[in-house]
Amino acid sequence: MRILILNGPNLNLLGSREPSVYGGRSFEEYLAELRSGFMGVTIDYLQTNLEGELVSAIQQADGRAQGVVLNAGGYAHTSVAVRDAIVAVRVPVVEVHISNLLAREPFRHVSLTGSVCAGSIMGFGLEGYRMALMHLIQRA
Amino acid sequence: MRILILNGPNLNLLGSREPSVYGGRSFEEYLAELRSGFMGVTIDYLQTNLEGELVSAIQQADGRAQGVVLNAGGYAHTSVAVRDAIVAVRVPVVEVHISNLLAREPFRHVSLTGSVCAGSIMGFGLEGYRMALMHLIQRA
Amino acid sequence: MRILILNGPNLNLLGSREPSVYGGRSFEEYLAELRSGFMGVTIDYLQTNLEGELVSAIQQADGRAQGVVLNAGGYAHTSVAVRDAIVAVRVPVVEVHISNLLAREPFRHVSLTGSVCAGSIMGFGLEGYRMALMHLIQRA
Amino acid sequence: MRILILNGPNLNLLGSREPSVYGGRSFEEYLAELRSGFMGVTIDYLQTNLEGELVSAIQQADGRAQGVVLNAGGYAHTSVAVRDAIVAVRVPVVEVHISNLLAREPFRHVSLTGSVCAGSIMGFGLEGYRMALMHLIQRA
Amino acid sequence: MRILILNGPNLNLLGSREPSVYGGRSFEEYLAELRSGFMGVTIDYLQTNLEGELVSAIQQADGRAQGVVLNAGGYAHTSVAVRDAIVAVRVPVVEVHISNLLAREPFRHVSLTGSVCAGSIMGFGLEGYRMALMHLIQRA
Amino acid sequence: MRILILNGPNLNLLGSREPSVYGGRSFEEYLAELRSGFMGVTIDYLQTNLEGELVSAIQQADGRAQGVVLNAGGYAHTSVAVRDAIVAVRVPVVEVHISNLLAREPFRHVSLTGSVCAGSIMGFGLEGYRMALMHLIQRA
Amino acid sequence: MRILILNGPNLNLLGSREPSVYGGRSFEEYLAELRSGFMGVTIDYLQTNLEGELVSAIQQADGRAQGVVLNAGGYAHTSVAVRDAIVAVRVPVVEVHISNLLAREPFRHVSLTGSVCAGSIMGFGLEGYRMALMHLIQRA
Amino acid sequence: MRILILNGPNLNLLGSREPSVYGGRSFEEYLAELRSGFMGVTIDYLQTNLEGELVSAIQQADGRAQGVVLNAGGYAHTSVAVRDAIVAVRVPVVEVHISNLLAREPFRHVSLTGSVCAGSIMGFGLEGYRMALMHLIQRA
Amino acid sequence: MRILILNGPNLNLLGSREPSVYGGRSFEEYLAELRSGFMGVTIDYLQTNLEGELVSAIQQADGRAQGVVLNAGGYAHTSVAVRDAIVAVRVPVVEVHISNLLAREPFRHVSLTGSVCAGSIMGFGLEGYRMALMHLIQRA
Amino acid sequence: MRILILNGPNLNLLGSREPSVYGGRSFEEYLAELRSGFMGVTIDYLQTNLEGELVSAIQQADGRAQGVVLNAGGYAHTSVAVRDAIVAVRVPVVEVHISNLLAREPFRHVSLTGSVCAGSIMGFGLEGYRMALMHLIQRA
Amino acid sequence: MRILILNGPNLNLLGSREPSVYGGRSFEEYLAELRSGFMGVTIDYLQTNLEGELVSAIQQADGRAQGVVLNAGGYAHTSVAVRDAIVAVRVPVVEVHISNLLAREPFRHVSLTGSVCAGSIMGFGLEGYRMALMHLIQRA
Amino acid sequence: MRILILNGPNLNLLGSREPSVYGGRSFEEYLAELRSGFMGVTIDYLQTNLEGELVSAIQQADGRAQGVVLNAGGYAHTSVAVRDAIVAVRVPVVEVHISNLLAREPFRHVSLTGSVCAGSIMGFGLEGYRMALMHLIQRA
Repeated sequence: MRILILNGPNLNLLGSREPSVYGGRSFEEYLAELRSGFMGVTIDYLQTNLEGELVSAIQQADGRAQGVVLNAGGYAHTSVAVRDAIVAVRVPVVEVHISNLLAREPFRHVSLTGSVCAGSIMGFGLEGYRMALMHLIQRA
Repeated sequence: MRILILNGPNLNLLGSREPSVYGGRSFEEYLAELRSGFMGVTIDYLQTNLEGELVSAIQQADGRAQGVVLNAGGYAHTSVAVRDAIVAVRVPVVEVHISNLLAREPFRHVSLTGSVCAGSIMGFGLEGYRMALMHLIQRA
Repeated sequence: MRILILNGPNLNLLGSREPSVYGGRSFEEYLAELRSGFMGVTIDYLQTNLEGELVSAIQQADGRAQGVVLNAGGYAHTSVAVRDAIVAVRVPVVEVHISNLLAREPFRHVSLTGSVCAGSIMGFGLEGYRMALMHLIQRA
Repeated sequence: MRILILNGPNLNLLGSREPSVYGGRSFEEYLAELRSGFMGVTIDYLQTNLEGELVSAIQQADGRAQGVVLNAGGYAHTSVAVRDAIVAVRVPVVEVHISNLLAREPFRHVSLTGSVCAGSIMGFGLEGYRMALMHLIQRA
Repeated sequence: MRILILNGPNLNLLGSREPSVYGGRSFEEYLAELRSGFMGVTIDYLQTNLEGELVSAIQQADGRAQGVVLNAGGYAHTSVAVRDAIVAVRVPVVEVHISNLLAREPFRHVSLTGSVCAGSIMGFGLEGYRMALMHLIQRA
Repeated sequence: MRILILNGPNLNLLGSREPSVYGGRSFEEYLAELRSGFMGVTIDYLQTNLEGELVSAIQQADGRAQGVVLNAGGYAHTSVAVRDAIVAVRVPVVEVHISNLLAREPFRHVSLTGSVCAGSIMGFGLEGYRMALMHLIQRA
Repeated sequence: MRILILNGPNLNLLGSREPSVYGGRSFEEYLAELRSGFMGVTIDYLQTNLEGELVSAIQQADGRAQGVVLNAGGYAHTSVAVRDAIVAVRVPVVEVHISNLLAREPFRHVSLTGSVCAGSIMGFGLEGYRMALMHLIQRA
Repeated sequence: MRILILNGPNLNLLGSREPSVYGGRSFEEYLAELRSGFMGVTIDYLQTNLEGELVSAIQQADGRAQGVVLNAGGYAHTSVAVRDAIVAVRVPVVEVHISNLLAREPFRHVSLTGSVCAGSIMGFGLEGYRMALMHLIQRA
Repeated sequence: MRILILNGPNLNLLGSREPSVYGGRSFEEYLAELRSGFMGVTIDYLQTNLEGELVSAIQQADGRAQGVVLNAGGYAHTSVAVRDAIVAVRVPVVEVHISNLLAREPFRHVSLTGSVCAGSIMGFGLEGYRMALMHLIQRA
Repeated sequence: MRILILNGPNLNLLGSREPSVYGGRSFEEYLAELRSGFMGVTIDYLQTNLEGELVSAIQQADGRAQGVVLNAGGYAHTSVAVRDAIVAVRVPVVEVHISNLLAREPFRHVSLTGSVCAGSIMGFGLEGYRMALMHLIQRA
Repeated sequence: MRILILNGPNLNLLGSREPSVYGGRSFEEYLAELRSGFMGVTIDYLQTNLEGELVSAIQQADGRAQGVVLNAGGYAHTSVAVRDAIVAVRVPVVEVHISNLLAREPFRHVSLTGSVCAGSIMGFGLEGYRMALMHLIQRA
Repeated sequence: MRILILNGPNLNLLGSREPSVYGGRSFEEYLAELRSGFMGVTIDYLQTNLEGELVSAIQQADGRAQGVVLNAGGYAHTSVAVRDAIVAVRVPVVEVHISNLLAREPFRHVSLTGSVCAGSIMGFGLEGYRMALMHLIQRA
């Protein structure tokens, strides 16, 4: 089984930024932990700051992976293109946000992508990725 | 350890309503399964159609339970009172919605309660409760 | 045949309040008249100030009554919970309002419940209940 | 006694359009039934696609008829002119809509004419006309 | 003379919650102080988390009390039902809020109940109740 | 010199409607007075309830009259078609409203036609027509 | 084959108005050119300033023509009645606008009719009619 | 008879600013012409850039003048204080604007003062003052 | 102890305007009564129609008075400058409004100044000033 | 002559996705047909999921091509950058959308790019590209 | 060369208010530094809390100064009068704000004056005045 | 010392586009002038049409440069991703816009990036870059 974890803009800064909030681990360390915890699952990982590369990655996951865990970062609120990609593919996409977006600025309360995902998880920190993985594995 | 699952209005109809969508199990059956899956955890359960009883239940869980899994149903969109109760207590509250609210009517896109919960899970059907439980147990 | 007339908050004050507007009869007197006018029909009646009791009453009418005449009062404008209850049941619900809500304050122009009822009648005073009853009887 | 039934744009298509929804009867057939059901009442009938002719018809009904049953169709949502005509006359006007407008597109949720009518009936199909007639007869 | 102090949801938590903000006294202690300060006045007190019980209490105060001091808590912003109750009764109702609502979240800036009360007092902490009492006594 | 006075829907009711407000004179009587007061000016007059006839009349006045006094009634607030006609012609159009629209319902505060007229006069009763005539004569 | 070209208000002024913008040809001249260019097609033509006549013309085209090219002019932005007519008929309707409405005033950005047409063409001047004709012929 | 012409901010620049638009006369020259044209009328004149001085001048005109011609300039759109002053006095106030505000920026479409004036005149240049004077004289 | 009562525009008209509503006393008479009722307190008083003088008075009260009772009149709804002055000073400011603003026009529901005051009192007539004074004295 | 067809995000999926809706041909097949139908025209083609590459392609077409046919996909609704590129170049750009955007979600009703294109075509399926090409060829 | 620095309401408090934020220097001290740094330039300075005095000062600077540095304080967000003054004069006006208004309350995000100034500088503290001066000197 | 000048989409066209507005110099020529004017400062320069490359460039400047001068072009109004990058880094970012955005289309009045920059400069043409540089050098 193969799952793609797809991280959008600025998520490459996790670990070095505000360690008191996000902990001192980089996403790569957390990813290693995830991989060792889900032995039978191949976890692909891609981080990009480019909206269009998120679109392409979602398209390419279709037929190759059994699920996508998507944290589109700032593009979750503005990207019709990413939304259209999620609708166009058959692979289920689960949206994860590290923080509780509803407790932040009003422009973060709108999620163009969330309404077309299989489900949404937010506010649980990095643990949200694990919850999303478990759902996709069980669903497959 | 003790967790309260708190269901709001109309969630007592689960199981008898639209079985092709929600499955043929009542919430009680699902609850039994959850209880047997989490042996060391006492799972309290309350369903009420009354907004004020949700307020009271959240208040009373403070100091007695280590976490609340809340599906406030229609009150999630309209209740300042439930929101104020969540803010007033120390016990962590996780919001669960069975369906993806963002894919439904616009008045369901606003969540007054979500912004003050520890986290939100939606769109995963009944499985959302299990995900919320796992988070609360791990967090405790 | 059995019909439930369900009145929401403050409608218990009819008759004693502003008799020049609403007439000097209480709703109970009017109800007696309705009952004698529809001989073959059992007319149940419930008035409550509690939103959640409206939800419960609608749920319980399902399978027991052939129709519900609902005047949700102020909850018509604010209650997602009552709306969800109407959607969840199979018994047809007809909305009645005594006054013409469109001629009153803007917050009364929105009806969350109206869009899921079988039909709406407003502005005809107490006669609206009789019109609703006649429709439900003919429809059954 | 004399009542005017006044139908606005596109209501001339009733009967030939979507018979599974509206039934196979034209409004003329339904009208014949109404007339035979209300023997002592002269029922005038006018259908027009022109906003200004609705205005004129309402003006001319004043002093000649004891009531107007108005289905202004699309003009209910946009016509200040029809609204002003209703306000200017003394004859009571009852608004009828065949479908439940609140369950349709948002631009149909606003009724400029409804707030100045004696009352509104919607969602009961052609039966709404009969309900309006009965109210006007009883009121006269 | 008889005055009803009516507290809405979550106000039962005063005293135990955030003592640095609200002081260490419970509302009951403060109430005792009020009662001893207004000797000739019978002060009834009711706290409820239920919207409909606020409606009922306001109705029942009519004819029994000479004034109501109302802190509707979260229902001040959402309850058409409580508003309608205030309009329906003859007993004067004074609205009190402990904090300055205008300095808090935007959804607290709207008060459905405030526009139909005799007056509003907010931002003065528990002292607001005393101010409201003094006004009602002087007015009676 | 030739001026067209163009009255929209419901303005044919002036004189018979609410004489305490508008005086007992019909617009025809007032028009006779205007004609005798402006001897060298031919004053054409048209009243219509039809939006499209307003459009046609404005088009036909172009090249035949030296000015148009327009009271579009309810169409002032809703008609892009009348607005487009005013823009398309070279003859100056002055907008008159008998009452002060800003003191009435919010939907009367928007004037689609006013922004393309040479000027606007409102709130002066029938005298507004005389003021508009004087301006057009002086301007010609 | 038969196609109806239906022009709304003020489009009768084409050719005489602003020749530097629209060219010196009247729509009639352009129509002659269209007719000679589409030999096997009978092109009916109607221009009207009346909203209701647009409604009637669309209704009457149903069953008689194989397509309608509609330039509703100002009514495109305001007419629910024209929209309802398009929905009610089976004949395909293509919307044409001579100018680019999105580059003009905000009230022209909303098209009530466009969302129910088979397609929309705007900004290509009179050529838009030819494009619409070609599409309807090919589609038939 | 005594009339006050009251000009708000920036209207002291008339005559020296954009003479091709407003003509080369200052308001003082125009005023002299007005005074010689209305012999039996004492015309007081005040121009001020201060919102509060407009308030004071309106208050002081009450009882001293038989009418006020007010061009509040930019304060027409923003001043609740000037509006309250107009409401508080018995002397009739006529609003004049030199340009057609509806054809300018959106923030000029709102007039807080216009809705409480006896009438409004706009778009006629300096002639608007003469029209306002004539109305006030005739009304007195 | 020294308190400043600061009244904004049009409040100088109290007493002479609408005596049936506000009573026949001028604010000066009421002020005399207040001064004799609070013997140990020096009550300064300033009324001004000028927004900027309210700003200056609030600035100057800082360090000289122990509290400010502010009725900013119409400026409460529009003045960022007065708001900024209240924020800039250390002296506590209590907002008073004579009428219940929430029951009046919508533009009076917004209070720019209220959210930065220590508290707000409205709807109690002139008694609001006494209530504000008592709070400031007790607080000092 | 040279024309650039420029397709935005997700349009690379045409043909494989929902063949019942879009037909079984890929855009490449359709393109081959277009090229053989317009013999004297060199048709360049670019598809990209990246917003910035759309900007670059429009810039580079300037001076090299005589026209651009642009289907910006989801970026049509959100991209100020693409809009600015269209404004900055001299080459005419025609906007094409395969479906009728006005009949889809509200966020698709806004087109930032459409208002600066030479014209817009939508709802005609792939045929829209041919219509755009014909216009550009004729215009050149 | 002569430049006017014009400061609006509450800017007289700089230096004594929040020295940790704005530094311990008064604006007068900073002004002295500016004057010694720009030797060949006469720097006039005016601070006023009155909106109308800002209007007058801008008018009087026209023809006397070669530039105006304007910090309108709270009036930047509300004053049409100040905006009109800037438009009416030929002297270039540069807007300065000490803090970053976009990071503060929403009502500070709107600048009525900014859109008619030559340019805007905000967020650089007192240094913004120096930047504005340098631009005006270089431009002259 | 090292400063990064970062230009967003379409800013590569400066110099060749509209030379009467922007002058005939390309940004490269202007950059050379800047570099020779700030001898001790290393000025890096990057222009990109890609939103994600702006994100990456801001991230990479952190720790390498002492300041960023950012003209995000169209992305200033739409990019949450660029905003998040500015918040995530410690290097100060100054926003520059060549034209006065407040004087252009409404969608340019919103700046998502401006509220998190150290300061904003707009409307001064290319000189804005020099002003930003001077501020960053002085601040370092």
